[in-house]
Amino acid sequence: MTAAAASDSKSYIFQGIIDKPGAQVVGGKGVLIDIERDGKVYPNMIDAIGGAAVASLGWDDEEVQDIIAKAATETTYSYPTLIANKEAERLAQFYIENSPKGAFSAALWCTSGSESNENALRIVRQYYLERGLPNKVKIISRESSYHGFTLGAQAISWNPRIDKFEPYLFGRNTICLKMPCAYTYRFKNKSETEEQYSQRLVDQVEKMVLDNDPDTVAAIIVETLPGSSLGTTPPPKGYLKMLRALCNKYDIIFYLDEVMCGTGRCGGDGKLNCWENFLDPDEAPDIQTVGKTLGSGYVTIAGVLVGPKIKDAFMNGSKAIFGGHTYSCHAFNCAVALGIQEKIKRENYTGNVFEKGTLINKLLTDKLLSEDNIAGDVRGVGGFQSVEFVKDRVTKEAFDTSLNVGARFKEKCFLNGLVVMGMPSNPDGSCGDRALLAPSFVLTEDDAEAIVEKFVKSVNELTDELRAEGAWN
Amino acid sequence: MTAAAASDSKSYIFQGIIDKPGAQVVGGKGVLIDIERDGKVYPNMIDAIGGAAVASLGWDDEEVQDIIAKAATETTYSYPTLIANKEAERLAQFYIENSPKGAFSAALWCTSGSESNENALRIVRQYYLERGLPNKVKIISRESSYHGFTLGAQAISWNPRIDKFEPYLFGRNTICLKMPCAYTYRFKNKSETEEQYSQRLVDQVEKMVLDNDPDTVAAIIVETLPGSSLGTTPPPKGYLKMLRALCNKYDIIFYLDEVMCGTGRCGGDGKLNCWENFLDPDEAPDIQTVGKTLGSGYVTIAGVLVGPKIKDAFMNGSKAIFGGHTYSCHAFNCAVALGIQEKIKRENYTGNVFEKGTLINKLLTDKLLSEDNIAGDVRGVGGFQSVEFVKDRVTKEAFDTSLNVGARFKEKCFLNGLVVMGMPSNPDGSCGDRALLAPSFVLTEDDAEAIVEKFVKSVNELTDELRAEGAWN
Repeated sequence: MTAAAASDSKSYIFQGIIDKPGAQVVGGKGVLIDIERDGKVYPNMIDAIGGAAVASLGWDDEEVQDIIAKAATETTYSYPTLIANKEAERLAQFYIENSPKGAFSAALWCTSGSESNENALRIVRQYYLERGLPNKVKIISRESSYHGFTLGAQAISWNPRIDKFEPYLFGRNTICLKMPCAYTYRFKNKSETEEQYSQRLVDQVEKMVLDNDPDTVAAIIVETLPGSSLGTTPPPKGYLKMLRALCNKYDIIFYLDEVMCGTGRCGGDGKLNCWENFLDPDEAPDIQTVGKTLGSGYVTIAGVLVGPKIKDAFMNGSKAIFGGHTYSCHAFNCAVALGIQEKIKRENYTGNVFEKGTLINKLLTDKLLSEDNIAGDVRGVGGFQSVEFVKDRVTKEAFDTSLNVGARFKEKCFLNGLVVMGMPSNPDGSCGDRALLAPSFVLTEDDAEAIVEKFVKSVNELTDELRAEGAWN
Repeated sequence: MTAAAASDSKSYIFQGIIDKPGAQVVGGKGVLIDIERDGKVYPNMIDAIGGAAVASLGWDDEEVQDIIAKAATETTYSYPTLIANKEAERLAQFYIENSPKGAFSAALWCTSGSESNENALRIVRQYYLERGLPNKVKIISRESSYHGFTLGAQAISWNPRIDKFEPYLFGRNTICLKMPCAYTYRFKNKSETEEQYSQRLVDQVEKMVLDNDPDTVAAIIVETLPGSSLGTTPPPKGYLKMLRALCNKYDIIFYLDEVMCGTGRCGGDGKLNCWENFLDPDEAPDIQTVGKTLGSGYVTIAGVLVGPKIKDAFMNGSKAIFGGHTYSCHAFNCAVALGIQEKIKRENYTGNVFEKGTLINKLLTDKLLSEDNIAGDVRGVGGFQSVEFVKDRVTKEAFDTSLNVGARFKEKCFLNGLVVMGMPSNPDGSCGDRALLAPSFVLTEDDAEAIVEKFVKSVNELTDELRAEGAWN
């Protein structure tokens, strides 16, 4: 070991816990993953979160390995804004043709969801410049939202994790505006129907638009199904339709973030887009970002899709986007992602994960909510499900953040052979600790039942532990 | 073709010129690349820019194809901030051990240079929070700089291409401050030595620091060798050393962007870092971003390296970075990049490109500056070279931007079988049109001579054309 290696740490990586390597993946097959931690290997864990909602195909898919080897011999890198490639075109064509007719006109492939949202914001800006409306700049996004880890994407996100970076976030509360989240479990009044709750929320947004001068409002962005920040809270009935109508009324871009919930994760019957559960084709978003399941973790790919309204404005204007990323529309990544998406379509894995995810929701609801434990809500759409933990089912009071319920639940699951995502409660109690499930699309009914069994066992163990501590009764 | 395909365009991709696919790469081998444009294939073009300074190995490298196939079977994706991997550790160890002893302590691998600079800014912010200095927020960067295409990276960049995005850039002229560029050809006074020019520049920066309250200044960031924005203007003698000393004096992070110029592109004798040409090991940057040649275009990888000063502050504080990218430290990308870097080291390709790049500089200087033509300056370091075009060699007057000299030169080269980057002059005349060369590290002396021959031919053709138009005499 050299001096550099021995200098100050056992890990060379600057992420997560930086003083030691921590848990490491050492293998995987299908929905199973092998993890090494503190010198011990935990083989054949059920990966119920697929990385972070990334897995669409299973790990170590031999067909994908062939696709990768072929793509490596058949693609050549070029700087894409000057010299493009056919692989990116093919992937864009596939995505557009497998979305509702007329919804999307073009795509830009990026290397992460963050970068996709950064580029989407650039497109928002240029769109209004093309139309001669330079004052349309304000972006309205939701409380408890997450749109990425880069600074532009964080500027339009609202959650406790990013406050300390505010000096490096543009236009907080001046250009980036915060609207309420849509969180039926916690904030729908008992006396309201879901539609009435939706109407109340969208009325608030309309007031914000009017108070801020509609001629300065550029876009409204929401995650179709929120991911880590709220835990797969489905939009209340009518909500997205009303938001779309509001955008139409005031000439505002309707922008959906489907990085975590899209590209097959939540679409029934093989649908690519999560919004197809809630919107008609003519209500499609003007801009949509995608990622994660697009490359299933095999390649680092994400993207931006734009509808005809956006593309037409550019076509009637400069017809060009100046500059770009070195790695956007990367031929190799696009070729691999296309091979993955073609396999998913051929095998109808999207239909499968919708069915099995719905089964998981039903089984968890039956088993958890019929018994006395810390589970407060089971919710989600298709292959993306969450359980929110509360101190009291009636008041829905969240556990204190210091109890680390989310992290502790994740550890219980780990020791039971199950990998989930555990998120902390918001310090202000506006969202409880929660566990997220987003398995690979290839899971079987047996896998779904095993996930539920281990999950329920972990809930019961943590419930007992919190009871013993006097933190739950 | 479906309705979506026929809707409004011949291209599905939203980048560059969006109404048609434009030039497309269709093959490559070594330093050669095959390009299709308007239905015609141009085979065996000499790729003298390697994408955009990306190529380190040549295209279609069979050993890399084996490395890729192996990495695909041996790696499994995981969400890296929760479950890390050994491949990222190995790549970090390689980079640290092949840099001067003690320079770097840890690395974070990202998927693009932009993302690396975004993460570096986050690290800057957290570094001062760990030290209890929340008011250290200002970032000083240079006139005519480029640090990426995402909004945070653009906020710290200063060039005419990004002005229209200012509403989405944080703290322009309040948190992000602009210092002069170091541009010997154009701004060193005749009466000054290079050292005196450096001293004058750094004195200006010191005045900025003092005027802005040193206790609020967080970092000074420069590209060690500027890329597209200025065209490989080497730092004047002593400049980087003086900047490093200034950072030490006022407790400011010294942050080098080597995304384009680093990782072997400009290091003699197999050196990874460009700064090793100008700084001693104990003057190493506190933070450095890298990219491009790291993965040689085969995989989409870039990164951030941090020195002991940064890591120690975290180790003495929270020991953790909260959150992260889905695709950071991607095991497959890291495994492939490591294989590529090991091959480059084994074959001493870095030494080779330094030698051949230096030869290109010498030949271009001899052949262009001894004759009457539009070339004003030939400059660069090792494998990264540029020629700046001027209307008048004595006054150094730039061509008017409307003449498109950079783009037209690129097209002349294209028709002569050579791929280069052509950049436009700044509208205010502060930098002339320029062509950049950054070939694959594997080029031979014959390749270097062929590049020079085609380059000179293209200069002469464009000179004749501009003379005929009355734009040059």
